[in-house]
Amino acid sequence: MGTAIDALRERMATYYDLTMTGSLLTWDQLTIMPINGGPARAHQIKTIEMMSHQLLVGDETARLLDAAEAEVASGKGSEVEQCLVRVTRRDFERAVRVPGELVGEIAKAAADGYAVWTDARANDDFPAFLPALEKNIELQKRYIDCFDVAESPYDVLIDNYEEGLTSAEISAVFDGIKPYLRPLIDRVVDRQEAVSDEFFRKPFSLAGQEEVGLWTAERLGFDPASWRLDPTVHPFQSSMSIQDIRLTTRYNENDLFDSLFSTVHEFGHGIYEHQISMDLERTPLGGGCSMTLHESQSRFWENMIGRSREFAGLLHPALARVFPEEMKGSTPETTYKAMNVMRPSLIRVEADELTYGFHIIVRYELEREIIENGMKASDLPEAWNARMKQYLGIDVPNNRLGVLQDVHWSAGSIGYFPTYFLGSILAAQIWKKMAGDLPDLRDLIAAGDFAPIREWQREHLHRYGRMYTPKETIEKVVGGPLDPQPYIGYMTAKVNSLYGPAA
Amino acid sequence: MGTAIDALRERMATYYDLTMTGSLLTWDQLTIMPINGGPARAHQIKTIEMMSHQLLVGDETARLLDAAEAEVASGKGSEVEQCLVRVTRRDFERAVRVPGELVGEIAKAAADGYAVWTDARANDDFPAFLPALEKNIELQKRYIDCFDVAESPYDVLIDNYEEGLTSAEISAVFDGIKPYLRPLIDRVVDRQEAVSDEFFRKPFSLAGQEEVGLWTAERLGFDPASWRLDPTVHPFQSSMSIQDIRLTTRYNENDLFDSLFSTVHEFGHGIYEHQISMDLERTPLGGGCSMTLHESQSRFWENMIGRSREFAGLLHPALARVFPEEMKGSTPETTYKAMNVMRPSLIRVEADELTYGFHIIVRYELEREIIENGMKASDLPEAWNARMKQYLGIDVPNNRLGVLQDVHWSAGSIGYFPTYFLGSILAAQIWKKMAGDLPDLRDLIAAGDFAPIREWQREHLHRYGRMYTPKETIEKVVGGPLDPQPYIGYMTAKVNSLYGPAA
Repeated sequence: MGTAIDALRERMATYYDLTMTGSLLTWDQLTIMPINGGPARAHQIKTIEMMSHQLLVGDETARLLDAAEAEVASGKGSEVEQCLVRVTRRDFERAVRVPGELVGEIAKAAADGYAVWTDARANDDFPAFLPALEKNIELQKRYIDCFDVAESPYDVLIDNYEEGLTSAEISAVFDGIKPYLRPLIDRVVDRQEAVSDEFFRKPFSLAGQEEVGLWTAERLGFDPASWRLDPTVHPFQSSMSIQDIRLTTRYNENDLFDSLFSTVHEFGHGIYEHQISMDLERTPLGGGCSMTLHESQSRFWENMIGRSREFAGLLHPALARVFPEEMKGSTPETTYKAMNVMRPSLIRVEADELTYGFHIIVRYELEREIIENGMKASDLPEAWNARMKQYLGIDVPNNRLGVLQDVHWSAGSIGYFPTYFLGSILAAQIWKKMAGDLPDLRDLIAAGDFAPIREWQREHLHRYGRMYTPKETIEKVVGGPLDPQPYIGYMTAKVNSLYGPAA
Repeated sequence: MGTAIDALRERMATYYDLTMTGSLLTWDQLTIMPINGGPARAHQIKTIEMMSHQLLVGDETARLLDAAEAEVASGKGSEVEQCLVRVTRRDFERAVRVPGELVGEIAKAAADGYAVWTDARANDDFPAFLPALEKNIELQKRYIDCFDVAESPYDVLIDNYEEGLTSAEISAVFDGIKPYLRPLIDRVVDRQEAVSDEFFRKPFSLAGQEEVGLWTAERLGFDPASWRLDPTVHPFQSSMSIQDIRLTTRYNENDLFDSLFSTVHEFGHGIYEHQISMDLERTPLGGGCSMTLHESQSRFWENMIGRSREFAGLLHPALARVFPEEMKGSTPETTYKAMNVMRPSLIRVEADELTYGFHIIVRYELEREIIENGMKASDLPEAWNARMKQYLGIDVPNNRLGVLQDVHWSAGSIGYFPTYFLGSILAAQIWKKMAGDLPDLRDLIAAGDFAPIREWQREHLHRYGRMYTPKETIEKVVGGPLDPQPYIGYMTAKVNSLYGPAA
C-alpha cells in the first residue's frame, strides 16, 4: 500500500486535470468558439466546476488530508509533498465552506453575465447589464457568508486572489503612494507637449501588427511548440499545462502599441506559468502563486522591459522593417517617447504606467463601497464617474467608456482589481533587486538577450509555483514585504526623465 | 420531488457535458494545441473519460434507470423522455458488461498499438506490428465474451457502431452489390482516357484553397455563428454542442480537390449534428444515430451533391474567380470530370466513389475471417493482397500500401469499416427518396440553393438524433431497410454518363 500522501497526490492530479480542462473550455469560449455555442458552453463550464468542487470537498479528500498531515508530522514526504498537503488543506478549507450548489450558481451566473455584458458594453446599456451584475454581487455576498469575517467581508474575496492579504494592508500601500502620484500626474498634464505619440497616430495594418507582435514574443521567449497567440476582445493569458501556454491580444489598426504591449504583458504571465518546475505539474502547486505575483510578472515585462529606452531601441528596426512606409522619419527615441505618453484617460487597459494606479484605486474603492458599505450596483455609474473626476480629473462621457469597460464584474470577480496595481508595485521591487544581481540588465534588453532575465525569474520565483504562500514567495524574490518606495522612486525617475523634474 | 425520469435526465445532462468537454479536449489536441501540450492533454482526456464512465455505470444510474423504466411502463414521460430511458439503458448495459480492468487493457493496447503501428507503417514492417495486432484481436475476443452471442461473435463488435446490425445482413447487402460493381470497374479500366483530372494536376495556393473551401461551405450552410473550419492532418468533424460544429480539413498545394471534398464531406457530418432538435441537447439523444447514418450524410454531400454535374457548374466560376490564372481554359465540364476520375488504387482514403466499396469489402471480409473463422493475424497480408487482386485487379507492392494503411486495427477498432460503405449505399437510397420529394433537386444544386435540401434532411432524419434505433431511423428516412438497388442504379448511371454505357 502507498502512503496517504501518494493517494492525495493522485486525487489532486485528477483535480488538476479538471481545472486545466476548465481553462480550455473558457479559453476556447473567449477566443475561438462560434458565438452560438455559448449556452451549452455555460453548462459545460458549470459541470466541470461542480465535478472538480465535488472532488476537492469529498469525504475521501478529508480523510486523505488528515492521514497525509499525520504522515507529514511524522517526517514523511518530500518538500514538494509537504507543500502539496498544505496547499490542498487551504484549498479544501476554502471550498468546503461553500455549498456545491452555490459554486455552480456562481459559475453559471459568470458565464451568463459575460454574454450579457458583451452586448451591454457594445450598446452602452448599463441597465441591460444591471440584473446580471446584481446577481453576481448577491452571489459574492452569499459566498462571503460561508466564511468567518475577521476584519472586513471584502477580505474574504481578496483572499481568493491573494492569500492572507487584507484590505487594511492594501489601503496602507495605496495610501502610501497616492500623495506622490497626484503631483506627478499634475506635472505631466501641465507638460503634455514634452512627450508625444502623434507620429504613431495612423493606421498600421493588422497583418503587420501580427507579424511584429509574434516577432516580439519570439524574442522574449515565445516558442510555438509550447505557446499560442490568438486575437480576442479582452487580452488574457491562460494555460492548459506548463507546456501549453496561450496568450491572446487584440488588434486595432489605429493603435499599434495596444496589441504590442498587450502581447508583451500577457507574455509576462505566460512565462511565469511556463517556468514552473515540471515536478509540480498535475499538483495544486503547478500554477502561479497569487494574482499580485502574477501581475508583477506581466507588468515587469510590459513596463520595466517593454517601455524601456533599450527595448524601444530593439523594437524600432523591427517596426521599420515591417512598416517601412509608416515608420519613415522615426527614430528609436520617437518610438520610446510614443510608448510612454502619460495622460489621464478613460480606459484602464489603455492607461499609461503613471495614471494606471488611479484606475485601480477607483475600482478598489468602489468594491469596498459595495461589499463593506452596501452601496447599490445601480449607483455604480455615478460613483465611478465621480471618482474618475476626483483622481484623474476627467469626465466620463458614457458607461461604455466608464463602468462597463471591464469584464471582471460581469464574471463575478470582485477583489481581483487591487492585485493589478500591487503587481506594478511589486514589479518595481523586482526590477531593483534584479538590477542588483544583473548589473548589465539594460544592456541585455538592448541586445534582445532575454535568457538571463528569464533565468533569474525562474530561479528566484517561477519555479516555486504555489509551494509557498504569497507573502513567503514575495520574501523569497525581493527579500521583504510589499513596499511602495521602489515604485515611487521608479515612477518619479521616469517622469523626471520624460517630462523633466519638478519645478 | 421530481420523477426518476427527471433525475435521470439531469444525471445524463452532466454526462453529456462531460462527453462534449472530451470532444473539445480532443478537437483542440488534433487541431490547434501546441505540440508540447501532448502529455498533459493525454492525462486530461483520460480523466474526463474516467469521470464520465463512472457517472454512466454508477449505482445511482442503475437505481434511476430501474425507477424511470417503471415510470415509463406506467405511461409517464414524454416521447423524448421515453427514448432517453431506452438509450441510457442500452449505453449502461454495454458499459457495465465489460469489467473496468478489460476496458483499461483495451485502452492501453489501443494506445500502444497506435504507437507501434505508426512506426511499422513508416518502415513497411508488418512483423513489428503483428504482436500489437494480435493483442488487440485477443482483447476484442475477450470483449465479445462479455456479451451473449446470438448468431455471430462479430455482431457484438458491429453493434458498437451500428446497433442491431448483423454480419448476415451486411453480407446480404454487399453480396447484392458485388456482381454489379466488378463489371463497372472493368469498364472504367478499359476506358481510362474518357475522364481525366490532368488539368488540375498543378499547384493551387493554400490561401486560395482556404478561400474556395470556406466559400463552398458557406454556400452549403456553414454559418460562422455556429461553425468553425480549421486545418489539420486528418480531416474530421466534431461538435461541442448542437450550436457549435467544427470541421477540419487539410490543404495540399498539389491536390485542390482533396481539401475541397474533405470540407464538403465533413460538412455532411456537421449538418447532421447541427440539425438535431434542440429538445435533445444535453441528453444522450443529442448526437447522430449511428455510424452508417452519419456516413450516409457525409457521403451524400460529398458525392451525390459535391460530385454532381450541377455542383461542378456552381463551383467552376468560384474557382475561376479565386484562381484566374490556374483555371484559364477550363470549363464546368473539365471540373466535373476531374472530380469524378475512377481508377482502381491502393489507398482507401484516396479511392474514388466507384472503387471505394471494394476497399471496404476487403476489410469487412478479413474481419469476419478473423473473428468468425479464426484466421491468424499473421495471415492478413497475404489474404489482403489476394483480395485486392481479386476485387480491384491490382497488385499490392508492399504492406505500407496494403494491410498497414489504416489506423483502425491498430487502435482495436473492428466492426467499424463496413459502416463506411453502408453509408454510401444509404446515401443513394436517400438521394432517390429526396429526388421524389424535391423534383427540382438538381436545379436547386445548380442554383446553390441548399436550404430545401437541408430542410428535407432535418425533417426526415437529423432532428431525431438518437431517439430511435438505427433501423427505425433508416425506415423513417427512406421508408424501408438498407437496400443495395438504389446504389447500383446510381453508380451504373454515373459510370454510363462519364465513361459511356456498356458495350
